[in-house]
Amino acid sequence: MHYTQAHIGALDTRTRAHFINSLSGFKSANLIGTQDDQGHTNLAIVSSVFHLGANPPLVGMIIRPHSVARHTFENILKTGFYTINQVNQSIYSQAHQTSARYDRDESEFAATGLTAEYLSDFHAPFVKQSRLKYSVKFVEHQHLAVNGTELVIGEISDIYVDDNAVEDDGFIDLQALDTVAITGLDSYHITTKLARLPYAKNNTGYF
Amino acid sequence: MHYTQAHIGALDTRTRAHFINSLSGFKSANLIGTQDDQGHTNLAIVSSVFHLGANPPLVGMIIRPHSVARHTFENILKTGFYTINQVNQSIYSQAHQTSARYDRDESEFAATGLTAEYLSDFHAPFVKQSRLKYSVKFVEHQHLAVNGTELVIGEISDIYVDDNAVEDDGFIDLQALDTVAITGLDSYHITTKLARLPYAKNNTGYF
Repeated sequence: MHYTQAHIGALDTRTRAHFINSLSGFKSANLIGTQDDQGHTNLAIVSSVFHLGANPPLVGMIIRPHSVARHTFENILKTGFYTINQVNQSIYSQAHQTSARYDRDESEFAATGLTAEYLSDFHAPFVKQSRLKYSVKFVEHQHLAVNGTELVIGEISDIYVDDNAVEDDGFIDLQALDTVAITGLDSYHITTKLARLPYAKNNTGYF
Repeated sequence: MHYTQAHIGALDTRTRAHFINSLSGFKSANLIGTQDDQGHTNLAIVSSVFHLGANPPLVGMIIRPHSVARHTFENILKTGFYTINQVNQSIYSQAHQTSARYDRDESEFAATGLTAEYLSDFHAPFVKQSRLKYSVKFVEHQHLAVNGTELVIGEISDIYVDDNAVEDDGFIDLQALDTVAITGLDSYHITTKLARLPYAKNNTGYF
């Protein structure tokens, strides 16, 4: 099937959203934990968290500042701190429910039954049920004028991960943690490993 | 297990790369097809392609301009065109091999056995073996001074996808296309669907 730009432009908004959201491939599933300066906690599922660099350890995400993630963005700008919590198979439906529109004084923790926990005196709440989570210090945001989104960049500080998931070379077995992947707007997946492949060198041929 | 910032800073470069690359969750697996103004083709696997917006249809990716993806970045800046080709189970090891360092006049297509094809007179080559692929017009890049990477933004134009993978509401079944997901630097996964969840509304409870 060949879809032209004209074809895509003629789709209704919701269909186009499902269609275009499928194109990038599998997405990460993470819950962003924040709180405001009055201590109101907030939790939002974000499918656009991506690796930005290992040294310094940086993580990026795209936020639509007028979407249901608006409180998350405001809390990050105000406090400078947030947590990223990987979503696993046991909590994916509760995680998805955080994408509903709640008022500022309603906590998505209470609304979904996920448990807030505070670790090492970090200002923002973690998700107790997440098996790989870390504290992040806000570094900067870049406004993407092309569509009004914000690229939010943070530095990773403390990492909490289930025992036995970290392999000797530093690789973390996300499959063993039952971490889920997202496709499109609403489809959740667990995985089966094909292989870890060796560092690719020239003249080794393909394998 | 609790890893502090000091702990992370003390890891050797390779171990830290594996470790930090695992934190964001599952990553997309895409091959970026380009050619230079002399017609030399280039193909590079990129795990940082992400959805940026559906209207207009925009896609972003992070490129390290001095890495093996340097030719990709140069070709995009010079010609303004590239293709994005989802990696599936049949070609993941060849796709991984494109991350080896080849000279400018060596084509990763020839080196890995993947087939270049040209569709609808678009300037950049597609990967024939990919089952979901699209042409992209370069829009802009933003230099991320925090670590010297580049955010490359493009607009999606023509989409080519296997018959029967597109559902009535626009959702594309990536699992049916055998699209793979990446964890860390080198681990490839296929998926099993848990569920598609309904659009989340307040007061519906969790489900």
